[in-house]
Formats: sequence, C-alpha cells, structure tokens
Amino acid sequence: MVSRRQLLTSAAGAIVGAGLVSRASQAQVPEAAASLSPATQPPPAPTTGRPFQPVVTLNGWSLPWRMQDGVKEFHLTAEPVEREIAPGMTANLWGYNGQSPGPTIECVEGDRVRIFVTNRLPEYTTIHWHGVRVPHGMDGVSGLTQPPIQPGETWVYEFDMQHSGSFMYHPHADDMLQIAMGMMGLIIVHPQDQAERRVDRDYAFVMNAYDIQPGSYTPRVNTMLDFNLWTWNSRAFPGISPLVARQDDRVRIRIANLTMTNHPIHLHGHSFVVAGTDGGWVPEGAAWPEATIDIGVGQLRAIEFIADAPGDWAFHCHKTHHTMNAMGHDVPTTLGVDFSDAAEKLRGLIPQYMVMGDRGMAHMAEMHMQLPENTLPMMTGTGPHGPLGMGGMFSMLKVRPDQSPDDYSDPGWYEAPAGTSAYRSSS
Amino acid sequence: MVSRRQLLTSAAGAIVGAGLVSRASQAQVPEAAASLSPATQPPPAPTTGRPFQPVVTLNGWSLPWRMQDGVKEFHLTAEPVEREIAPGMTANLWGYNGQSPGPTIECVEGDRVRIFVTNRLPEYTTIHWHGVRVPHGMDGVSGLTQPPIQPGETWVYEFDMQHSGSFMYHPHADDMLQIAMGMMGLIIVHPQDQAERRVDRDYAFVMNAYDIQPGSYTPRVNTMLDFNLWTWNSRAFPGISPLVARQDDRVRIRIANLTMTNHPIHLHGHSFVVAGTDGGWVPEGAAWPEATIDIGVGQLRAIEFIADAPGDWAFHCHKTHHTMNAMGHDVPTTLGVDFSDAAEKLRGLIPQYMVMGDRGMAHMAEMHMQLPENTLPMMTGTGPHGPLGMGGMFSMLKVRPDQSPDDYSDPGWYEAPAGTSAYRSSS
Amino acid sequence: MVSRRQLLTSAAGAIVGAGLVSRASQAQVPEAAASLSPATQPPPAPTTGRPFQPVVTLNGWSLPWRMQDGVKEFHLTAEPVEREIAPGMTANLWGYNGQSPGPTIECVEGDRVRIFVTNRLPEYTTIHWHGVRVPHGMDGVSGLTQPPIQPGETWVYEFDMQHSGSFMYHPHADDMLQIAMGMMGLIIVHPQDQAERRVDRDYAFVMNAYDIQPGSYTPRVNTMLDFNLWTWNSRAFPGISPLVARQDDRVRIRIANLTMTNHPIHLHGHSFVVAGTDGGWVPEGAAWPEATIDIGVGQLRAIEFIADAPGDWAFHCHKTHHTMNAMGHDVPTTLGVDFSDAAEKLRGLIPQYMVMGDRGMAHMAEMHMQLPENTLPMMTGTGPHGPLGMGGMFSMLKVRPDQSPDDYSDPGWYEAPAGTSAYRSSS
Repeated sequence: MVSRRQLLTSAAGAIVGAGLVSRASQAQVPEAAASLSPATQPPPAPTTGRPFQPVVTLNGWSLPWRMQDGVKEFHLTAEPVEREIAPGMTANLWGYNGQSPGPTIECVEGDRVRIFVTNRLPEYTTIHWHGVRVPHGMDGVSGLTQPPIQPGETWVYEFDMQHSGSFMYHPHADDMLQIAMGMMGLIIVHPQDQAERRVDRDYAFVMNAYDIQPGSYTPRVNTMLDFNLWTWNSRAFPGISPLVARQDDRVRIRIANLTMTNHPIHLHGHSFVVAGTDGGWVPEGAAWPEATIDIGVGQLRAIEFIADAPGDWAFHCHKTHHTMNAMGHDVPTTLGVDFSDAAEKLRGLIPQYMVMGDRGMAHMAEMHMQLPENTLPMMTGTGPHGPLGMGGMFSMLKVRPDQSPDDYSDPGWYEAPAGTSAYRSSS
Repeated sequence: MVSRRQLLTSAAGAIVGAGLVSRASQAQVPEAAASLSPATQPPPAPTTGRPFQPVVTLNGWSLPWRMQDGVKEFHLTAEPVEREIAPGMTANLWGYNGQSPGPTIECVEGDRVRIFVTNRLPEYTTIHWHGVRVPHGMDGVSGLTQPPIQPGETWVYEFDMQHSGSFMYHPHADDMLQIAMGMMGLIIVHPQDQAERRVDRDYAFVMNAYDIQPGSYTPRVNTMLDFNLWTWNSRAFPGISPLVARQDDRVRIRIANLTMTNHPIHLHGHSFVVAGTDGGWVPEGAAWPEATIDIGVGQLRAIEFIADAPGDWAFHCHKTHHTMNAMGHDVPTTLGVDFSDAAEKLRGLIPQYMVMGDRGMAHMAEMHMQLPENTLPMMTGTGPHGPLGMGGMFSMLKVRPDQSPDDYSDPGWYEAPAGTSAYRSSS
Repeated sequence: MVSRRQLLTSAAGAIVGAGLVSRASQAQVPEAAASLSPATQPPPAPTTGRPFQPVVTLNGWSLPWRMQDGVKEFHLTAEPVEREIAPGMTANLWGYNGQSPGPTIECVEGDRVRIFVTNRLPEYTTIHWHGVRVPHGMDGVSGLTQPPIQPGETWVYEFDMQHSGSFMYHPHADDMLQIAMGMMGLIIVHPQDQAERRVDRDYAFVMNAYDIQPGSYTPRVNTMLDFNLWTWNSRAFPGISPLVARQDDRVRIRIANLTMTNHPIHLHGHSFVVAGTDGGWVPEGAAWPEATIDIGVGQLRAIEFIADAPGDWAFHCHKTHHTMNAMGHDVPTTLGVDFSDAAEKLRGLIPQYMVMGDRGMAHMAEMHMQLPENTLPMMTGTGPHGPLGMGGMFSMLKVRPDQSPDDYSDPGWYEAPAGTSAYRSSS
C-alpha cells in the first residue's frame, strides 16, 4: 500500500494525496493522487504487488495504487488542469490527476486491475485502454460499450493485463476535442520475469500538439493541420527533461503519438531498433536499424539501443517546424539572396521583412523580441557553445561514463575530449 | 459465364446488366454490369474459371466476368456516378460501372485477363493496374505507355496475373483530378492453391477523401490538405457496413489508401500483423504485432488476426478529425476552462462560441442542428448505450460465437456477459 | 589526388575547380570544386583511396577529394546558389559548392575523413552528419556540440566512417530556414569488400519541397504545409533525369526525405524491398516486398530490385499533388457533372471555372496558358504517346535489354513489342 509519507517524499516531492490515505484506504474508492509539478518524477520501486523495474515518464509520474484483495486499484480523475508547457508559458488543458498527460499506469503481466475514473470535466467522458486486450464491456467506447461517464460520476473498469507491453489511455467520447485538450496517458505492462526484455534505462512519453495562439491559454480544438505547439508530454523545449544514461547502458524509449500527423523521431550518435509497438513486442529478426523512426498517429514505438557514445546527443522530431515554438506559417518571409537593389524593392513590398530576417533567422535565437504574454520564443535554449535556437519536440540524450544507474538528474553539459571537436581552420 | 439470372439474384440484388447477356456474350465486348446500390454485396463463389474464395468489398461488389477461349473478360466503364456517402448525403463523383469506387476485380494467379475499358467521362482517361506486374504497354500511363482513352472510346488491356496479392486500379491520366473525384478500385488475385494463405473472412476497401462543402455535391478537386470528408470506399460513418466474424475466425482486411495523407488504422480488442502489401506477401518472420497500422498514400496493407474476442469492436482511423464528418477547421472554438468572467469576455469576442460548446462538444452528438441540404452531421450514429458521436472513417468489427461463416449481415449489438462491463461506482 | 584535368573532363564537363589544384594541394585547405550544371554527372571510379563503385546522384555529382597523409579531405562551401528547377525556372536557394543539394560525399567504411566547411552565407551555419556515428564534438549541432560557423569562417570536421550505409548532411543551425532554402546533401559510405551488397546500378537522391510563388524566385521559408514545388534534388519533372538499367540488373535507389511530409514512392512494373535505412542495412529476412514505400521526414530508404521488365516505368511520389507543379490549392474548381443548367449557374458564381475545366483538367496538359515569369506549367512533359501531364516528383526507370552498364544517358522512348500494348477495341 502506498503510504501518505511515501507519496510526499517521492523523487520530486510533488505528488500529493487528495485526502488521508488511512481514511481513503478504508473507503471503496481509493485515493486519487495528484501531481502539482511538471518535473520528471521517477517512481520508486513497487512495495506491493509483483516486482518490476519502473519506467521514467518524461516530465511525468506514475500513478500510485493500492492492493485490495489481490487487485491493483487505481483512481484517475478527468479534470481541467493548468500545465506549464515550458517556463514562461502555461496552458489551460484537460487531463488527469492534476496534469496533462495523466500519470503513467504501471502493472505487471497477469495483474488484475480495477481503475476508478471520476469525471470532473464539464462534459461526459470515457477511457479507452488503447492496445490492452480487455473484455468488450471494458473497452471504453462511449455509446458502443458503455454509456458515457457524466460529470460528477465515478465509473469502474476492471480487467486482467494479459500481455506485457506499452499502451495508452485516452477518452473515446468527444474524442477529437478531448484529445486536442490533452487527455491521454501511458500504460506500461511489465513482463512477469524481470529478466525478460530487461533494459538499464526505460523512458516513456506521449507526443501531443496544440494550437494556442500567442497571448492566449486555451487550445483551439478544431484545428486539424496547422498546430503551432508540438510537445512531448505537453512540454516544449526547453521545458523537456533530458534523457540520461550511463555509457553502454541498454536504453528503451517508449514513444506514443496522439497528435494529428506523423512524427519522425531522430536520435543523434546512435542507431536503434523498434523493439515494441502498441500491439506487442517485435520479433528480434524482424527489426530494422534506424536513425529516424516515423511514428504514425495512434501508434507507439518502443525503441532500443546501446548508449555506447558519451556526449549530449540531440533527440528530436525531424520535421523542422516541430522543433520551433509558436510562429506564423504564412508570413511571407523573404531572404534577400541578391543584396543589391532587391532589398530596396522588397522593403516596399513586405514591410515586416526586416523583422524576420534578410540574412536568415539565426539571429532570432539571440534576439529579445517583445513577445505577447504567455508566449514562448520561437527559437530558444542555450547550450555550452551558445544559443540552440530550438523549441517544440527537442531534447537530449546525455550519455556519461560515470552516470549512476539510479540517477535521472541532468548531469550538465558534456565536455568533449581534446581533438574530438570540430575546429576553426587555421588557414 | 455469368448469366443474367445470376446477376439479378446476387446477394443484395443490386447488380444489373447494361443489356441482355445473350446478346452481349456474342459480341466482342462483354457486358458491363453496373451496381445501383452502395450496400455491401458479397459475391457468389465463382462458377467459371479457377475456383477461389471471394473477398467481401465493404460497401462494394465484385465485377462479373465471362470466360472467352480461356481468358477472363471484364468490362469497366469510367463514368460520372452518384454515390450515397451515408444516408442523407449523396455526392457527384466519377467512378466505374455505376459506383465509386468501381467494382473489385477478382482473379486467380495465372489467369489471363482481358479488361475492356469504356470511357464515358467528359475527358480522356486510362487505367493503371497498381502493383500488378504487366508488360510495359499495358501499364496504363497516359502519354508514356499508351495514348489516352478519349471520351466514347473503348480500349482493351490484356495480361497475365502472375502473382497473387492485393492491388488497385486507378487512372494515370489527369491523375490528381480523377482520383480526387473517386476513380479507383481494388484488384484481388487469389492463390491457385486455395489452402495457401487461407483465411475465414476476407474483407477489402480503399480509403478516399473528399472536399465537399456543406450544401454542395461535387468535390473541390484542387484541395491538397484540408479535406472535410474522410471515407472508406466513398462511404462515411454511419454509412459504412460493419465487418462480421465468427469467434476464432482468421480474418484478413485489405486496406488501400488513395487519399493525400497517411491513415493510421486502429482495431480494438485485437492485435494484428501486416500479412501483405501492394508489393506481395510479407514473410511470416518479418511481421510486427500492431494495434495501429499507418498506411501511406498509394499503399495497401492486408492485415490478419484471429478474431478471438467476442464483441463490437471499434475499427477506425486514429486521426480524430478523420472520424468526424464535414466541419470547419479554423473556427476559433474556445473552451471556457475558467467559467467565471472568462465566459462573458469570450462571448464578446467570439459570438459563435455558444454553438461549438463552452463545455466541450459531446452535446453536439445529441443536438439537432439545422444543417445545410445534403450535409451529414459532424458527429453522429447511435449505439446500444447512446450516441456514438462519430463520422468519417469509423466502423465496427462484430465478433460473435455463433456467426455463420456465410453470413455477412449486421448481427445487431453485442450484449456483454454480466460482470464484464464498466460500471458506476456505488460509493 | 584529383587532378585539374580530371575535374574538367568529368562526365558532364561541368565541375570546375575554384582555383589551381597545384596551388590548393599545397595549401592547408583543399580546393572546393563547384558544379555549374544541374545535369546528372556520374563520377569516375576513384583513383585514390580504397576502391569502390560510385553512386549516381540524380541531377547531381560527387565531391572530389584529396588524400593527405591517409586522410580523405573534402571541402564544402555553404553559399547562395541559383538552381535550375527545370528548364524555364530557376530558384534562388542556399546550397553547397554551387548547387542545391550539395555534392554527394562518397567514402569507404574505415576511411578517415577531414571535411572543411567554409561559410559564405549571410548567417551562421553548421553541418550535421545525419546517421553517421561521429564523436560528440563532430556532430554539428550549433550551441550544443560547437559554436556556429560564422560567415567567412572555415571549420574542420574530422572522423572515421565506421559503418557503410546511406546518410545525409544538413545544417543544425537555423535548421528550419536553412533546410527550407535547400541546404542538404548525401553521404554514401561503401563497404570495404566490393562484393558486399553489390548492385549493378546505384542511384541516390534527396527529396525537398519549396514554396515559391508563381513569378518569384525565392522560397517562402515559413511555410509548414502548403508547399507548391515538390522536388527531387531540387529538380521538378520534366527536369529530373531518368534512371537507366540493363534488363536483369540489380538496382539500388537511395532516397532521402528532407521535406515536411511523408512521400510514398511508387515504382511501376517491379516490386522491391527496403535494403537499407539511414540507420544501417536491413536484415534480409526482415524486408517486405513493396510497390510503394512511404518515406518519413529525415528518413532514408535504399530500395533494391531486379530490373527484369523492359520498358519506361513511371517512378513517382503517389501523392497526386506532388506530381504537379505550382498551383493554387484553394481555387474552387468545380466539375460540371450536370452539364445542363448547372454550367450557367457556376459561371455566375465562379468566373474562373472555364480556366480550370468543366470537363476535367487533362486539357491543361496541352494548353498553352499564359504563365507568370519563371513559372513551370502545372502539368507538363510529353511522352511517345502524347502529353504526360505531370510535374514535381516524377521520373522514369528505363530498362533496356542492351543498355551498357556504363551508360547512364537517356536511351529514348521504349517501343513495346507487338501485342503487348493496350489497344482500341474494334467493336
């Protein structure tokens, strides 16, 4: 049983109980823990139920449970939340237990789970357990397998986790709006045998996208294509935690996509394979070596590799617009390739052409533009060698020879040994 | 030889001959059967040529043929058609033999086929046999392998079906417009050995997309991205037939994509593998287990699985906008997350914000909005537990313990056994 | 060492040295060869360093090098360039060594390379060696692994090519803008054993996309979705060279994607497998037969097949808008499906409806519209049987029984043997 003390002293100290556990544990509905922080909160090893090695949810946390007569009981509350997208910007989203995405649900193959879902939204909802093989009546499709969960109601889902793997949960009621508002989370079902598909580091996140106009707080929910905030776990760079590994660790990163377009995820310095999907584990002989994996909407890819190269390795979506924060996509920016009289003519045609750059946009990364309230710079972040000029779906894999297996904190910038860096030519 | 009687008594009774078979069979050009109905019309087992187990084309039919000196003769007519997208909406499309998509062409590996193509369109056309390995001169690329087929002309293609598999046909003349207007169909080449790659249920459809403005009937053919009708075989939910299986049947679903974007197809309750593509059959050891398969444009994926879980399982594209019918994508819908004074301010800024919902959009599924003529509700359909709130690329796999192997009709709603459904918490 | 004479007499005679080699070879920085031509320039077999069979870069060339103490030295210059997109249209792009994309860098597994990069752009840049496993300090990520290369500076990257395969190079500084302007190139690392993964023909290109408004020369760099020029190696049909093979040759085509969307590449007349990615070589048993391969952004797919079918086979992106040149995507083109009174009404509503066709758009391919300056026709090209009506990402694979293994020139149109072409029905 998760004690009140344990909740309050967990990694980032940010998970709080909604009430006293002693009281809640006697009640029929278990306590719904909530998180107040967007920090990465690696969960402690489980103290009840079957043992497993927890995943680290990037800028997220795992939901505590209680054991009740051999059943793992969880409690999710669907509710409006305020999510910090990155320092300097907060969004009004819908999520679970205080955050968007909701907390990761971790189980072991063979576990029986009972999941209480309380609806604190202004409209009805349900939860679909994407990829998990459940009885028809537990599938969470509003109108088809159950009536919707009305505001104020608590519903109960109960089923066996038959297969290990990486899955998702999200509403299947007013899907388009509720997913566009940030309602989603991950389900990790660990193998019973801890040696099976063992890795040294196990990360997970879900990709989402929002259309939040500069100066506003709430996503436009009808947008189909022209999103302006591309996020991992509702966080944009530089608000995304780095992923940390010790050199030669075997690393798994489980990446789900609940946006409206494909995201080709590229890792520097390493090649990897897809070891699992939301449908199960990929047979070893069927995997391809990849530097970039294109993840479709509603898909999950668990990639694996040996982190054999020390350094700070960029890890990002390869669509270049998805590593930028909010910007206008139809501003007629024109580079003055011919700098003689073209410039004068352009200035007449396009008054704002000075703003977006006649020499490129790199200087934007260093400029201090006057931005609307609650708006992230388009290109931002600073590295050890100057401005990074990034945003959106960008983070780093930080591989160190001496990183402790238990330490998930940012180890700072990597310093390359002499003779292994690009250098200015002396000629 | 397909008799007139057989045509008139086929499954849904909706296939009609364009003339008397007795006369047509003596002519050089075989009869071009046409379908008057968008219903799913499972074809009868073949009575001439090599035996095979027919596919069931979702909301479609298979083209009858005649044997002529050992050659299978088909007749396609390219022509303007009226297609019912779903009850309440009809579109002016271009298709073949009375419908869009055209009828499925079914053959057996080793068959020699002769396909007559009559052009009744106002502009020229050709047919390309996508994925089928044909001699260069039969490839159907206008200007490159043949002159275009002018209005009023009938052209003949003749080649051997060298490989079993799942293929497509579509014009390769004014491609963009003609495909945007609905000109496409499927080609299924069955193995000679009926035991090879045998399944119990074999479904097929092609995905298409249209931009038909509310109140109008004809697609805007220049649209590249912002389509508003996402369809399977030119049908949108609730106009799409369910897929039916007996529990433990081996099921194959062949899914082609002739839209302008990827469609990640998600099946509830089961995991599946990709068993074939438009390039051939996937080696068994190379397949991945999937819950969602991302199908690129111009690709075909034949997925296979054992339907071991009884129930009504949602089966849909996972892009949430693709399970909605026509809607505006740039309406500034704003959820009033803060319900105090924000609401008042918003009402000033966005007069229509009451329409699209300050509490979400779920109530849209139940509202009876005044819609323009010939326009489907954005969110619609009713299940056993209330409104489904769906549209577009959505259907159901209905698995029953007792479904007859020959019965493809909708078995009604599934009733989950006691204790296997989500339930309201009593606390 | 590459001699001046060799440069000037290479295939298309279009590569020129920026200075005298005799002088440059003595200097610390090797000569930066430049190409003046968008023609396909098959490189000669290497005369220094390990032997390999060169790739043929479609409408491109390979960068000469010099050996210096056992190290292969290359010199890239990042600079504004003028690129002919197709005859009749030139774009102001950014590229390397006179062209966009830059020249292909070819090496052998185990080679140590030293790559000088001179920045002649108006803003800073870097080069990232996408897919190549380099030390952290050589990874080319501005701000993270190095300071940016300022205008006028020359920087040096030096590392071992540890793995054979197909990779890319592009900036990782102001990425969005610099890639949108055309800065990219390919890296081919050949196996040491020339018998390993040997093919008879080895082609390579990178896909890019531009938003250049009709009548203008410079891409709009903020465009995220609505591009109007879809190109291979910054060339649009009919500006793209055909790919040539002798019948029964084993052919490889390495295709990279640096646009903002997936491109499903379809080859007629053959099925193929993916043999390699930007992450390495695909295990033989893991490959799928395909007729269309969907290539994600930042991905590379090396496809392989036996060119066993003689003919001129269409080879193109299957998104129909991507085989058109610049057009408006929101023009309300309406087909007059009902030709009686609808036409009159439409003419009132949509004055330009005559232009875009009441009978389809095929006649556009033959029309001589008045186009703005520097603008390609939307549908163009002429084949042996009339207008092709294509643009953008379209070319042909030309398979001939008698094509010389050394000949990469266009062999002209294929003539199908009697009885193997589609024909007009005599009835």
